[in-house]
Amino acid sequence: MSKDGILFDRVTFIGIGLIGSSLARSVKKTGSAAHITVCDINQAHRDKAVELGFADDASGDFIAAVKDADLVVICTPPGVCGDAAAAFAPGLKEGAIVTDVGSVKQSIIHDVSQHLPDGVHFVPAHPIAGTEHSGPEAGFAELFDGRWLILTPPAGTDETAIAKVRTLWERAGSQIEIMDAQHHDMVLAITSHLPHLIAYTIVGTADDLGEHLKQEVIKFSASGFRDFTRIAASDPVMWRDVFLNNKEAVLEILQRFSEDLTFLQRAIRWGEGDKLEELFSRTRKIRREIIEAKQA
Amino acid sequence: MSKDGILFDRVTFIGIGLIGSSLARSVKKTGSAAHITVCDINQAHRDKAVELGFADDASGDFIAAVKDADLVVICTPPGVCGDAAAAFAPGLKEGAIVTDVGSVKQSIIHDVSQHLPDGVHFVPAHPIAGTEHSGPEAGFAELFDGRWLILTPPAGTDETAIAKVRTLWERAGSQIEIMDAQHHDMVLAITSHLPHLIAYTIVGTADDLGEHLKQEVIKFSASGFRDFTRIAASDPVMWRDVFLNNKEAVLEILQRFSEDLTFLQRAIRWGEGDKLEELFSRTRKIRREIIEAKQA
Repeated sequence: MSKDGILFDRVTFIGIGLIGSSLARSVKKTGSAAHITVCDINQAHRDKAVELGFADDASGDFIAAVKDADLVVICTPPGVCGDAAAAFAPGLKEGAIVTDVGSVKQSIIHDVSQHLPDGVHFVPAHPIAGTEHSGPEAGFAELFDGRWLILTPPAGTDETAIAKVRTLWERAGSQIEIMDAQHHDMVLAITSHLPHLIAYTIVGTADDLGEHLKQEVIKFSASGFRDFTRIAASDPVMWRDVFLNNKEAVLEILQRFSEDLTFLQRAIRWGEGDKLEELFSRTRKIRREIIEAKQA
Repeated sequence: MSKDGILFDRVTFIGIGLIGSSLARSVKKTGSAAHITVCDINQAHRDKAVELGFADDASGDFIAAVKDADLVVICTPPGVCGDAAAAFAPGLKEGAIVTDVGSVKQSIIHDVSQHLPDGVHFVPAHPIAGTEHSGPEAGFAELFDGRWLILTPPAGTDETAIAKVRTLWERAGSQIEIMDAQHHDMVLAITSHLPHLIAYTIVGTADDLGEHLKQEVIKFSASGFRDFTRIAASDPVMWRDVFLNNKEAVLEILQRFSEDLTFLQRAIRWGEGDKLEELFSRTRKIRREIIEAKQA
């Protein structure tokens, strides 16, 4: 099954935003599917997917869209993966594989699995890739090239199904890591969810300033603020769902962050320069490790 | 004085790190000085400045280094600008212009002005440019090209001196803005100092994790965390001094940020998705304004 060419006869994408349309482009480009169907509740997105050529057809009917599908890829915001699964599950054929691309894994596994009939295999997946843009026009086939793809299959998941999903992502250029869902959610809370929350917060703080000051913040944003605005331009609905669905891990790491920030605040107030310098020297080393790990 | 060629016969740089060496390279490249002297307490930096060719000579003696200088550019960390001025002031000639490049302006104006003799003009300046790298090798002449340069001359500063410093920076490619020092310190607290503090904090929080988790944070850093590590790799001593010398503005904006973060934390805990989505939609607009202002 790892040979080039057809990997699945029919693939259906549920939701066709940045991630879905990027993967669909990759599947089309690598010839991994004989037929690609797109299902999206947004008519404009469906039309765009067909117009852009990475979908062979499109439908707003969940059950019809997954009929005869060998692979169904859920690419909706994390909070509605369960609802989507409930809607399409009755149309699934025996032996179909279902996967997803959500940034949280425990809640999606919980929400989706309960709706799937016996004989259908669920392989949860999360590509560590994205941009601050949204929608089917924003996607591109190379988005996953050289990036991590984390699989979090629960114990007992069909090995053949895992292998096929893995191959699909390898063809998109991803490096594969297999991880426990709970561990995934903690690691991502630190590397992704907290940074996004912080970026949203600081940009929001700036937005609440008086209009004159806000215009100057925009004008002089290159001094550091600008980097946060790119992160804080990410899809609002998707990120709302990430925080609501990874609540425990996010609140735990946020608590540690707040303590550390209060420590620095106090050091600034009391003029304790040695404490600041010690931390700022340590953080510089982490950057070096990231460069050495070729993640920079 | 705005014609090409010599703008100052002799220019002396006090401190030759990233910013100083970048400006020295620009001055050399544009032929704005007949002679460039570098003064740095670090012998290796002095040797490097001469070796790299942007300094005509170098000295560790502050008074000798500024003798006959028409322009003295203080490029030390913000916390020692006053000490540097105290050290070189006795060597300044009548009519000399002193300027600086510090990221905070009120404290530097206070610390430097008190040491300068009558007949010497001080024109405080701050280039909104930098990288996470430090030292004389890290500089490059194009660092200021298309970037803002903020001048904060106190009322009554000699207009000719202001114009000459302005021209020097225009030749480096900077756009010039004139601003009150107190206002500068508040704007930069928001656009630069708080983002750096937050980035240092979050990278520090990650550094305090257990070793195994930390290695995974580095591995999967591309999901958001990586952007913070670049900011948190900035020069530790310079940034220590920024926070200690812009304490009031930083603590004020940090207080607002903390309140906003607590609001989001509470919204996550209680599952108030509408509050999250509303903020995340507002922050996306700020990014658009930055792109429209051509600062992205």
